[in-house]
Amino acid sequence: MNLHYKKERGSVILNKKEWAGEYQTNNVFIAFKIKKKIFEKQSKYQKITIYDSIELGRIFFLDDVVMLTEKDEFMYHEMLVHPTMGQLDSPKKVLIIGGGDGGTLREALKYPIEKATLVEIDKDVIEASKKYLPFTGKSFMDKRANIIVGDGAKFVAETDEKFDAVFVDSADPVGDCAVLFSEKFIGDIHKILNKGGIVVAQSESPFYDFVVVKDYLKFMKKYFTHSLTYLGFVPTYPSGMWSYVMARDMEIGIPKEKVKGLKYFNPVIFQAAQALPNWMCNTLYPI
Amino acid sequence: MNLHYKKERGSVILNKKEWAGEYQTNNVFIAFKIKKKIFEKQSKYQKITIYDSIELGRIFFLDDVVMLTEKDEFMYHEMLVHPTMGQLDSPKKVLIIGGGDGGTLREALKYPIEKATLVEIDKDVIEASKKYLPFTGKSFMDKRANIIVGDGAKFVAETDEKFDAVFVDSADPVGDCAVLFSEKFIGDIHKILNKGGIVVAQSESPFYDFVVVKDYLKFMKKYFTHSLTYLGFVPTYPSGMWSYVMARDMEIGIPKEKVKGLKYFNPVIFQAAQALPNWMCNTLYPI
Repeated sequence: MNLHYKKERGSVILNKKEWAGEYQTNNVFIAFKIKKKIFEKQSKYQKITIYDSIELGRIFFLDDVVMLTEKDEFMYHEMLVHPTMGQLDSPKKVLIIGGGDGGTLREALKYPIEKATLVEIDKDVIEASKKYLPFTGKSFMDKRANIIVGDGAKFVAETDEKFDAVFVDSADPVGDCAVLFSEKFIGDIHKILNKGGIVVAQSESPFYDFVVVKDYLKFMKKYFTHSLTYLGFVPTYPSGMWSYVMARDMEIGIPKEKVKGLKYFNPVIFQAAQALPNWMCNTLYPI
Repeated sequence: MNLHYKKERGSVILNKKEWAGEYQTNNVFIAFKIKKKIFEKQSKYQKITIYDSIELGRIFFLDDVVMLTEKDEFMYHEMLVHPTMGQLDSPKKVLIIGGGDGGTLREALKYPIEKATLVEIDKDVIEASKKYLPFTGKSFMDKRANIIVGDGAKFVAETDEKFDAVFVDSADPVGDCAVLFSEKFIGDIHKILNKGGIVVAQSESPFYDFVVVKDYLKFMKKYFTHSLTYLGFVPTYPSGMWSYVMARDMEIGIPKEKVKGLKYFNPVIFQAAQALPNWMCNTLYPI
């Protein structure tokens, strides 16, 4: 048996032109060998960069932080969307906050819903995704997609519409995205959910940012009768260990397998994803 | 809510003196900011390097590949050992192949066993671990530890002893470790297990090296009536998504929680760890 590659040995010498990377923390750095820079633009909000990499297909960065890679984005997007959609009886309207690459939208549109509203602050991200990330961005072409360029927190605070599911698909809780990790924002989401509706948000790496996991669950508990944290693998996110928080004013159930052909999610996976390592559950669910 | 750090922005410029890293594949590189190099030696078999890092405590490399970090080694060692030890009735003798840092030995010795035999090829790894990795290496001082410096595959082929559990705690399947991923080696382990005994081995990252996961499970199936692959998070290993393969000539059961104070493992975690993403189970367990 052999690996499909032979690991190179050597010290840290990376050629800036050939590698694109991210400080996953101030003290941990990951880099991907690239074939070509496909796109770069300083938008009103952030630097958007898209590369073709050798190992992971196309890679999409915002301000030098990996948002997705072509090879593993399915793990994140499937785990964000299907545990919720699979347990709703007949969801009609869903809301996505952020998600400007279109991946969450793509997964939500696999269900026979009437409308998926997506509120993304940066129109340049949407445009770049349509053009350079077709595997996620093509979902913007679906006629059930209702795309709003604007502030997600403001939208949630002001809309009169109600939704069966809300997906918070944000970048890290710094800068413009910090508000999407706030107590007020969660309270505002609570108000716009239909009866039995579900909210789910990505809540960062428990290994590097456990405080985010804890606070987000704590805020959810304030507004919802039922809430929980679950886990999934996302190899190109910091630590590869990613968390999601789900909340509802009804018991959280077991999703059905309503969509065929998924690469990661199945109902058993969602049950399994709720089993947390001791160091997490001892803190999150104290006896 | 704020992160405990502010992510630096910038391009790939790493100072060789301040960072220690690993090519996780030829095209993915991870680096850790270090405080100090603690130890370095070219042994007969490999380069041993130990650093103090800022984020992850002490880090132990063999040939520039991360073997463990102080902060997350418990995730790997607990998941390698406790699913097996927790389901054996009263294991008396265990065998560890590799595991020269002492972490697997430490976890096995948490049970009231009579003897833990560890066969590590590189005595310099054991000596360095005793001295510089006390959190794992102190287990070598336990009087139930029977340490053999030698070739693990040869030991397994030649020994007359029988064991209740065998743990294969090897480095990547290249060089001297390749034999620990071979069909013959697994057949030899099968012969030295007591009735109802269990073997478990680390089987690499399904994301980067799925062929290893597949082959190891296939070889196990040849010799054992029951076998399965399970998963766990190990943030500092390639992709953070790690696999283990377990086999036995009896039904694989649900481990009991016989040891208190673990940081990762609980019986529910092991059940959950057997739920594989679709792309894995569709290949590993074809209908």
